[in-house]
Amino acid sequence: MKDRRLLVVGAHSADFVWRAAGAIAKHTAAGGEARVVALSYGERGESGELWKQPGQTVENVKRHRHEEATEAAEAVGATFECFDLGDYPLEVDSAAIERLAELMRDFAPHVVLTHPDTDPFNPDHPVANVAVSKARLLTAGAVVEAGFRTAPPSEFLVFEPHQPELCGFTPSVFVDITDVFEQKRKAMAAMRAQSYLQQYYTERAEHRGNHARKVTGRKQIRQAEAFQRLVPNVVEAL
Amino acid sequence: MKDRRLLVVGAHSADFVWRAAGAIAKHTAAGGEARVVALSYGERGESGELWKQPGQTVENVKRHRHEEATEAAEAVGATFECFDLGDYPLEVDSAAIERLAELMRDFAPHVVLTHPDTDPFNPDHPVANVAVSKARLLTAGAVVEAGFRTAPPSEFLVFEPHQPELCGFTPSVFVDITDVFEQKRKAMAAMRAQSYLQQYYTERAEHRGNHARKVTGRKQIRQAEAFQRLVPNVVEAL
Amino acid sequence: MKDRRLLVVGAHSADFVWRAAGAIAKHTAAGGEARVVALSYGERGESGELWKQPGQTVENVKRHRHEEATEAAEAVGATFECFDLGDYPLEVDSAAIERLAELMRDFAPHVVLTHPDTDPFNPDHPVANVAVSKARLLTAGAVVEAGFRTAPPSEFLVFEPHQPELCGFTPSVFVDITDVFEQKRKAMAAMRAQSYLQQYYTERAEHRGNHARKVTGRKQIRQAEAFQRLVPNVVEAL
Amino acid sequence: MKDRRLLVVGAHSADFVWRAAGAIAKHTAAGGEARVVALSYGERGESGELWKQPGQTVENVKRHRHEEATEAAEAVGATFECFDLGDYPLEVDSAAIERLAELMRDFAPHVVLTHPDTDPFNPDHPVANVAVSKARLLTAGAVVEAGFRTAPPSEFLVFEPHQPELCGFTPSVFVDITDVFEQKRKAMAAMRAQSYLQQYYTERAEHRGNHARKVTGRKQIRQAEAFQRLVPNVVEAL
Amino acid sequence: MKDRRLLVVGAHSADFVWRAAGAIAKHTAAGGEARVVALSYGERGESGELWKQPGQTVENVKRHRHEEATEAAEAVGATFECFDLGDYPLEVDSAAIERLAELMRDFAPHVVLTHPDTDPFNPDHPVANVAVSKARLLTAGAVVEAGFRTAPPSEFLVFEPHQPELCGFTPSVFVDITDVFEQKRKAMAAMRAQSYLQQYYTERAEHRGNHARKVTGRKQIRQAEAFQRLVPNVVEAL
Amino acid sequence: MKDRRLLVVGAHSADFVWRAAGAIAKHTAAGGEARVVALSYGERGESGELWKQPGQTVENVKRHRHEEATEAAEAVGATFECFDLGDYPLEVDSAAIERLAELMRDFAPHVVLTHPDTDPFNPDHPVANVAVSKARLLTAGAVVEAGFRTAPPSEFLVFEPHQPELCGFTPSVFVDITDVFEQKRKAMAAMRAQSYLQQYYTERAEHRGNHARKVTGRKQIRQAEAFQRLVPNVVEAL
Repeated sequence: MKDRRLLVVGAHSADFVWRAAGAIAKHTAAGGEARVVALSYGERGESGELWKQPGQTVENVKRHRHEEATEAAEAVGATFECFDLGDYPLEVDSAAIERLAELMRDFAPHVVLTHPDTDPFNPDHPVANVAVSKARLLTAGAVVEAGFRTAPPSEFLVFEPHQPELCGFTPSVFVDITDVFEQKRKAMAAMRAQSYLQQYYTERAEHRGNHARKVTGRKQIRQAEAFQRLVPNVVEAL
Repeated sequence: MKDRRLLVVGAHSADFVWRAAGAIAKHTAAGGEARVVALSYGERGESGELWKQPGQTVENVKRHRHEEATEAAEAVGATFECFDLGDYPLEVDSAAIERLAELMRDFAPHVVLTHPDTDPFNPDHPVANVAVSKARLLTAGAVVEAGFRTAPPSEFLVFEPHQPELCGFTPSVFVDITDVFEQKRKAMAAMRAQSYLQQYYTERAEHRGNHARKVTGRKQIRQAEAFQRLVPNVVEAL
Repeated sequence: MKDRRLLVVGAHSADFVWRAAGAIAKHTAAGGEARVVALSYGERGESGELWKQPGQTVENVKRHRHEEATEAAEAVGATFECFDLGDYPLEVDSAAIERLAELMRDFAPHVVLTHPDTDPFNPDHPVANVAVSKARLLTAGAVVEAGFRTAPPSEFLVFEPHQPELCGFTPSVFVDITDVFEQKRKAMAAMRAQSYLQQYYTERAEHRGNHARKVTGRKQIRQAEAFQRLVPNVVEAL
Repeated sequence: MKDRRLLVVGAHSADFVWRAAGAIAKHTAAGGEARVVALSYGERGESGELWKQPGQTVENVKRHRHEEATEAAEAVGATFECFDLGDYPLEVDSAAIERLAELMRDFAPHVVLTHPDTDPFNPDHPVANVAVSKARLLTAGAVVEAGFRTAPPSEFLVFEPHQPELCGFTPSVFVDITDVFEQKRKAMAAMRAQSYLQQYYTERAEHRGNHARKVTGRKQIRQAEAFQRLVPNVVEAL
Repeated sequence: MKDRRLLVVGAHSADFVWRAAGAIAKHTAAGGEARVVALSYGERGESGELWKQPGQTVENVKRHRHEEATEAAEAVGATFECFDLGDYPLEVDSAAIERLAELMRDFAPHVVLTHPDTDPFNPDHPVANVAVSKARLLTAGAVVEAGFRTAPPSEFLVFEPHQPELCGFTPSVFVDITDVFEQKRKAMAAMRAQSYLQQYYTERAEHRGNHARKVTGRKQIRQAEAFQRLVPNVVEAL
Repeated sequence: MKDRRLLVVGAHSADFVWRAAGAIAKHTAAGGEARVVALSYGERGESGELWKQPGQTVENVKRHRHEEATEAAEAVGATFECFDLGDYPLEVDSAAIERLAELMRDFAPHVVLTHPDTDPFNPDHPVANVAVSKARLLTAGAVVEAGFRTAPPSEFLVFEPHQPELCGFTPSVFVDITDVFEQKRKAMAAMRAQSYLQQYYTERAEHRGNHARKVTGRKQIRQAEAFQRLVPNVVEAL
């Protein structure tokens, strides 16, 4: 993983935590660099606990969410930044896609993670998928000389949505996150505005650990995260 | 790959050559062990050149096919054996599945390769898929103690069929076979009964090399083979 | 059905008649409330008979279509309203989606019906699906406290398109409309601008009745309508 | 549910517990009748704990499994019987299918539950699906007079497999099992040979409860089970 | 069509009538030869009217069915023969597949029609699909010299099932049967044991005619039949 | 083909050459008319060789691309025009869709060819698909009188993308281009800015020729192109 760069793009500032914090921690623990981009703070639709406070304002919610996400990212060795494009609905125009493409050309990630293209329970997740897919293709071009600056093509995967079967999500790779699970737990604990999800995703990681044990027979795996590759990867041997 | 064991099961004795000889060569070059099992010799349906000889007999065709397949397997560092179950149609009864499961319990492969479950152009390939799938599951059991001998679960992939889109084949991993391509060429040259396929699969490997370059940006890749995982694999990091 | 609210959203003013008039009639007959929203009048693309009249104008076509749809809606106990966004092509911008979401927040429907997301024969039906899906998600939020007004999540189904197999439509529920079929017939008769469809959809309802008989063995079913659920429903028992 | 009959068919004697015990309990609590049929005891492949005992025998394992399954079935108000066809591999010949069809003609179930048709982790579950599908069709005939005894067609659903996305399982209905969850817990506790699954399926029921809450907004739902309909159902209204 | 040979294989003796009689009539009207093979008489499951007669016997039902099917085949210019393998369930063993393959080697059809591979309402239709698919592949071999007699590969299509969306049937070609519809009507009238289907399939043909008009704009099309190609066809130009 | 009109719409000026030049040549050789429309010149993303020249400008690249495409189109008997909407990303607004629809109303094509709706390696191809699909539907209307000018509905197919399985492309028809292959070769030779693709697509045409031989048994087929129909076609007989 040394010298490898991982880019995680979520629709809302907390998405990366539930779905990919373990994989990020494994990546950085192995010497890689990880960068989290949120397209919005999820300030309107995914900040339930904060909106229970009387007199709450959007600006205050965003500030909270920024602090929480930054703390969570740090817990797994990553940086956090937010495009602050608004949520419910998230809208990503051409300029924002170009901004993301420029970020990719600068960062030149080896791996890009984002949401699946379908989610019958969330209006913003598929929007993020479309934006990231487009920005990624504008980054690499057709892998020949181009009339614009390019970066090499990246591996492209989606992380696990909340109700996977209804989002067309079929896992193609499990990351064993057993030895970094305490870091993921810390990252989840930072998301105080969505505390009700911590138990859910702790158990989910254990279930995916169970699946990963079934697939390999390796009894020492306790927690895992599931991902689906959108393009084939290239390996030296099977 | 050191100490890893690869099992390749084809419906006919030549299938492994066109579809997986490169991946086998990479595996053995890296110190792994590879074993090829053919369920039949393809003596009736896939031995075109041999049947053009006047007075040809099934036994003679099988003998030729055995020699060719053995030579091809050796060219990529593998062993070859044949269950000789007959072709067009290949039929795999419970006893043959149990024989295959026993072989898997003994060999304990880390990776198993076979045909996809669909092929509108070949009556035997899907039969092989069903047999291998079943034997593999009977080998590992439910990954708990069982009332029979078991081996650990293996990675499970299918190799590329002749008309991939019509067989429901979607590549999920490319193996870069550039540095062993001469070995694959030798293996293909050994299949004298199907010489017309050598040019086709040489070009196909170059096309898959082109795809692998597109996916990675690595210009040094010249030839590749495509595979589709049927169950997720477990990795330490993305 | 008492106290239940049904919202039907069509791309054009007549869509609800052919595809859901029976289910609406069942709903209102059982004491429920039903509201039909058309995103356009279908004035350009689906008003064939009216455009045969010399000197016809768009405004006159719309007026006719409004009267017909209102009459049809009344025949099945529903109200009709039209957003008048234009057709061929229908375009639904962010403001129109927000208008629809506001309507949903006010009406708080238990069930929402619209078009499938695919239709290789109609440019506007999929646009309606996308708009309704988005508005519906903006209505319910993430089912936690939110920074905006919400209504509870609704059941979400699509009604039958004209060529179902080519629109990816697979029925998951049939509504037995036998005892309200005369109401549907009246609703269809109101659509004088598309009179050629009355026989077609009468027979179609009988065919779906045949399918519903096959599924249940209940011989008394004569007519039915087919729907596909997009999200699971929750029941007390099977 | 009064007077309704539910038939649950599993490949192994414990399958019904993890996957459908809650739905069974709801059914019987509402006055319905429920019958569980296991095609085998799962004696070889799914009796891990029992095989750890020195000197264990197949007959003894089966006896244990019979007692456990009977106890579990009673905990949810159902009867249990086993065809004892053997497992790993389960094979269901024509006579066994006819036996199942006869049972269906006698019992005339309104609802039939079994495994999905795909499971890359279990050799027997898809075999059960094929057998139940065939027996069910032989029971109802073509819903006309027939040259054999028939029973009315039943609703047909599959219950949730262990790794749903990889089995092609997409939930189409959630059963709220909150008020019978203690019964399911008791049924699970009876399966002493697979005790490691109790925590997993308790959490899984809570996760499905979370999904059912998301779908309905009903906060009082705590546990649920997920099912997929294979044929549409017929309703009086949406 | 001159000199072209069409083979239609149904699970039961009447299947070809409802699903393909029009296409057969077009084929023979254009000078082609058509041969209908039924794998069974549908004597147990699809002879409803006949079983209402007191004292009815299987042999008598078969005799009636043979006469009806022969009359229907003649009405569209085809011959009829039956393998009489039994229905509900239909079972096609290796010998019957070989018998079908031999028939194909003799007849050398240019086009083969049969049922789709899925039908949740009929136990025999998918069995017919599997048998025909296998026999067809054993007929052509791998399109090289083979160790057995071969015939050239045929076009391969499935005809429309009763509930198409639930059988995975997506039309890829419509045959305009307007000018032979009276022949189809006569063929349907011959199936006295299933008279209740005549109206249904007359209307169905008109609906497919409507679809074919939509696809082409040709107003003179009144009736059509729908088919799905399982393998691509080769054309001289689009 | 006489009097038939073919419209080919590509995202970039060279797309038609690799994917459909053979089918165009067959069409014009048979007396049909063919018109190629490019939505952009592919000046930024697909003009690799040209951008290697120092001091290159966009305007100069476009000029080169126009000349090449015109030469290639002439080689296969077609005309070429470009909407010059820009590439990487291609954006097609409502005015451009209307322009395309107007062109279709004027030209009234019998067949329309474009890209598939998915391409994980190209940001512009799916955009072209969406635009062409929409324009085509706006051209034909609902095949009744309409409030705007219409043309009859056309056959609609997509041509082969670079990595077909990953674009959801499944061939449904092969065009035998053997006797016009020299024309396609000339058209490819004209695309000097993408010379590296000439060998690839020559071999690809031979592979598709191999597939077309397998499908038909006709040994004289040497080269073919693959297409997928998006809507059924209507034929006089199978």
